[in-house]
Amino acid sequence: MRPMRGHSHRAKEGNAGLRPPHSLPPSVVVREMVERVFAGHAGPTAIRLWDGTLAHGGRYAPCTLLVKEPGVVRELVLHPNLFRLVEAYLEGRLEVEGDFESLFELGEHLAGFRPSLSTRLELTRMALSLPRARRGRGTGRHGQTCRPKGNCRATIAHHYDRGNDFYRLWLDPELVYSCAYFASGEQPLAEAQRDKLDYICRKLRLEPGQRLLDIGCGWGALASWAARHYGVQVHGITLSEQQFRYARERIAREGLEGRVGIELLDYRELRGEARYDRVVSVGMFEHIGIRNFPEYFGTVRRVLRADGLFLNHGITSDRDWADTAATRFINRYIFPDGELARIDTVLKAMEDAGFETLDVENLRPHYAMTLRHWVRRLEARREEAIAVSDEPTYRLWRLYMAGCAFNFERGEIGIHQVLAGVRGNPRPLPLRRDWLYPE
Amino acid sequence: MRPMRGHSHRAKEGNAGLRPPHSLPPSVVVREMVERVFAGHAGPTAIRLWDGTLAHGGRYAPCTLLVKEPGVVRELVLHPNLFRLVEAYLEGRLEVEGDFESLFELGEHLAGFRPSLSTRLELTRMALSLPRARRGRGTGRHGQTCRPKGNCRATIAHHYDRGNDFYRLWLDPELVYSCAYFASGEQPLAEAQRDKLDYICRKLRLEPGQRLLDIGCGWGALASWAARHYGVQVHGITLSEQQFRYARERIAREGLEGRVGIELLDYRELRGEARYDRVVSVGMFEHIGIRNFPEYFGTVRRVLRADGLFLNHGITSDRDWADTAATRFINRYIFPDGELARIDTVLKAMEDAGFETLDVENLRPHYAMTLRHWVRRLEARREEAIAVSDEPTYRLWRLYMAGCAFNFERGEIGIHQVLAGVRGNPRPLPLRRDWLYPE
Repeated sequence: MRPMRGHSHRAKEGNAGLRPPHSLPPSVVVREMVERVFAGHAGPTAIRLWDGTLAHGGRYAPCTLLVKEPGVVRELVLHPNLFRLVEAYLEGRLEVEGDFESLFELGEHLAGFRPSLSTRLELTRMALSLPRARRGRGTGRHGQTCRPKGNCRATIAHHYDRGNDFYRLWLDPELVYSCAYFASGEQPLAEAQRDKLDYICRKLRLEPGQRLLDIGCGWGALASWAARHYGVQVHGITLSEQQFRYARERIAREGLEGRVGIELLDYRELRGEARYDRVVSVGMFEHIGIRNFPEYFGTVRRVLRADGLFLNHGITSDRDWADTAATRFINRYIFPDGELARIDTVLKAMEDAGFETLDVENLRPHYAMTLRHWVRRLEARREEAIAVSDEPTYRLWRLYMAGCAFNFERGEIGIHQVLAGVRGNPRPLPLRRDWLYPE
Repeated sequence: MRPMRGHSHRAKEGNAGLRPPHSLPPSVVVREMVERVFAGHAGPTAIRLWDGTLAHGGRYAPCTLLVKEPGVVRELVLHPNLFRLVEAYLEGRLEVEGDFESLFELGEHLAGFRPSLSTRLELTRMALSLPRARRGRGTGRHGQTCRPKGNCRATIAHHYDRGNDFYRLWLDPELVYSCAYFASGEQPLAEAQRDKLDYICRKLRLEPGQRLLDIGCGWGALASWAARHYGVQVHGITLSEQQFRYARERIAREGLEGRVGIELLDYRELRGEARYDRVVSVGMFEHIGIRNFPEYFGTVRRVLRADGLFLNHGITSDRDWADTAATRFINRYIFPDGELARIDTVLKAMEDAGFETLDVENLRPHYAMTLRHWVRRLEARREEAIAVSDEPTYRLWRLYMAGCAFNFERGEIGIHQVLAGVRGNPRPLPLRRDWLYPE
C-alpha cells in the first residue's frame, strides 16, 4: 500500500506525468532513478548506462561509472551504501573508468542520501520493477580466517602469495609493498621507495657489523638495502612462501648470502635474548591483531639489546577497530587477519613492553601518494595483471588500493613510524634530529 | 627479646668484640652503622659526620653528605628509604656538598639494602640507642591542593609565585622555565633556550599575521620570541600573578603591546571557536590532572582552526600516576596539582579530542641537561637565593631539580613534544621534516 500512497503524493507535487516503469525501456527508468538519487550531487563522477545513456554528470568527468545492468541501480536504491557499489564493481556489473577514488566520494553521497518519504517510496517502487542484479559472480579467493593466533601462514598467503609476477607488474623495481617517502608530488615512485629504505636505515642509525632483524621482510628490499649500504648483518623473516623464495634468490643474485639470511619464520618462533642491535618491522604489524600486541612487542623487546633501537612502521586508524561494514569488507576480501590500531594503542603496548617512545612520525600523505602510483600502474598493466592472476584479483586490488588512498587522504587511516629505545638507556639517540636530514 | 637474640647471633659470627653503644660517643656508633649500611656501596657519595669523621667513601668523592646529628642515621636505619634522606636535607639535619644527584643514587642503595636478619636486628638496636632526630623544622609553604578542578590560581601561585627575583637568579636571561634544546653538552643554557623557542616556532610553522595562543605563557619568553621573529599575533595566558605582571612589563618594554596580549586567565575561560591558527603549551599540562585532559584538549580543539597546528610540550612518565611515596612527595612539596601521564595516555586524550598525531619527539636528555644547569646556577647564587626567598625554598628547589634530573637521566620521566593537526585536514604539514632543520 505505501508505495501507492507515495506515488499519488508525488503525483500531487507535479510528477503526474511519470509513466509506469513497466511500459518503458529499463534505461529510461534507471536514468530517472539515478537523476533523483544524485540530484544534489556535484562530485566528479558521471554515471553512464549500458546503452550509452549519460544518467548523471558530464561527458568529461574525471570518473565515469558504467552501469552494465539495471539490477545495479535497483540494489543501490534499496540499499544505498558504498558496499553495494563495491560489490557491483567486484562482480563486474559496474565498471569504473578514470579516477577510481571518485567511487568512494559517490558512496558518501549515497550514505548521506535522505530523500523525502514520498521520493523514497517512489524510488523503491521503481527499483522493485527492475530485474534483480546477477549477484555472486566470483570475486576470487577470500574468507580465510585465522584468529586469535594471528598472522598464520594461510592468511598471509591469502594476500601476499597472489604471485610475485602480479606484484612485479605495478610495484617499484625494489618491490617495496609499503608507503614510499616522497620529497614532492613529482618524485618518481622508484626513487621515493629507495628514499624510504634509506630513511629507515638512517632512523635506525645502522652501523657496519650491527645485527638487524627485519620482521615481515617482504621481497627483501630493506634487508638488501641495509646490507649493501650500511654493512649490517640482516636476519629477515616472512610468512609468505613466495616472498621467501624471491628474497632468497634476490639475496643470492646480489651476492649478499653472507650478510643477509632470509627465513620462513613466524616472529613468535624467534628464540634467544638480546640477539639484535636493531629491529625493524615495516607494514607487518597490521596483521598481528591488537590482542597479540603484548606478545609481538614483548618478543621484539626480548630479542633486542638494551642499547638497541626498534622501528615499527605501520598503518593506524583514527578509531578503535570495530565490527563495521568497512572492517568486515577488509577482513573478508583483503586481509583476513587485518586489524588497525590507534596510535595511542600502539604506543601503550610498546611502552608496556619496556620500550621508550623516542620519535613518532605520521607519513599519512605519503601512503595516499604511494597508493595512487600503484593504482595507476596496475591500471596501465591491466591485461598483464589479469593474465598472471585473474580478473577478480585485478578488480579487488584496484578497488582496495584506491579505497585506501581515499581513506589516507581523509585521515581516517594514517601511517606512523615509531622509533623506540629500550627503557633505561640514558641516551638512545643524538640530542637533535638534524642527523636524519643531511645537507 | 629479638634484638638480644640477634645480637648474640651476630656475636657468634665474630662481632663479639662490639661494645654496647651506650658506652660510646654517638659518632663512633653512627660510623659503625653507616659502615654496615653502606658496606656494599661503591657509589660516588661520601658520608661525613658532624664531628668531621668520614664514615663512608673517600675524601674526594663528587658528593659528600654531611650528617649533622645522630638522629639522621637513626631514622635511616629504622626507615631505610630516600624520603628520610630528603626530609633530613629539607629540614637542615643533612647537608649535601657537591653533586646533589648522588643523593638519589644513595637512596636507591638504601631501598635495596637487604641485610641479614641478625644485622638488621643489630642495626636496629644501635639506632634505638641514638637520640631522635629533631624533625619538623620548617620546609616552607606546602600542602596546597586544588583537585579535581585542576590548576587553580592558588596551586599555581604555590610554585610560580616564589618571586620573580628568585627565578631570575638561576634561569636564563629569557626566563624560560622548561627544558632547553641543546646542540651539545657544551652549548650554554641561554643559547639552548633561545634555540628551543625558535624550534617550537619552526615546528608550529608560524607565519606573519597568524594568531597564536600560548597556554601557560610563563614570563612571556615564547610569546615575545614568536612576535619578534615570526610576526604573529600572540595571546598568552597564565595563572601566576607574578608571571602575568612580569610578562606584561616585558612586552611593553619590548614595544610589542600591539602584537602580544597577556592575560591572567584559566584555559577553561577561553571563549569562542576556531579563533587561533596555532596553539602552543609548554610545560603547563603537567598541572592539569589526567582526569581533566578531555576538557583541556577539547578546549584547545575548539579554539583552533581546522587547518591549525597544536604543539604540546610536557613531562611524561614511564608509568601511570599512582599514590606512591615519590608522587606524594612531589604533590606535597612541589606541585600540589601535578600529575604526570604516559605518552600513550596523552595521545589517547588528544586523538579523542579530534587531533591527529603528526610528530612526537622525546627530548628527555635535554631536560636532564637543563636541570643540571639550573641546579649549578642556583647553587652558585645560594646566598642571594636565600635572601630573595628563604632557606627552605632554596633547599626544596635544589632538591627537586636535582631529583628530576636524576629521573630524566634514567628515563623514569620523559619530555615529549607532540605536534598535532586537526583530524580531517588532508595535508597539515610538508611531506618531509627537513624544513625543521635548515642548512
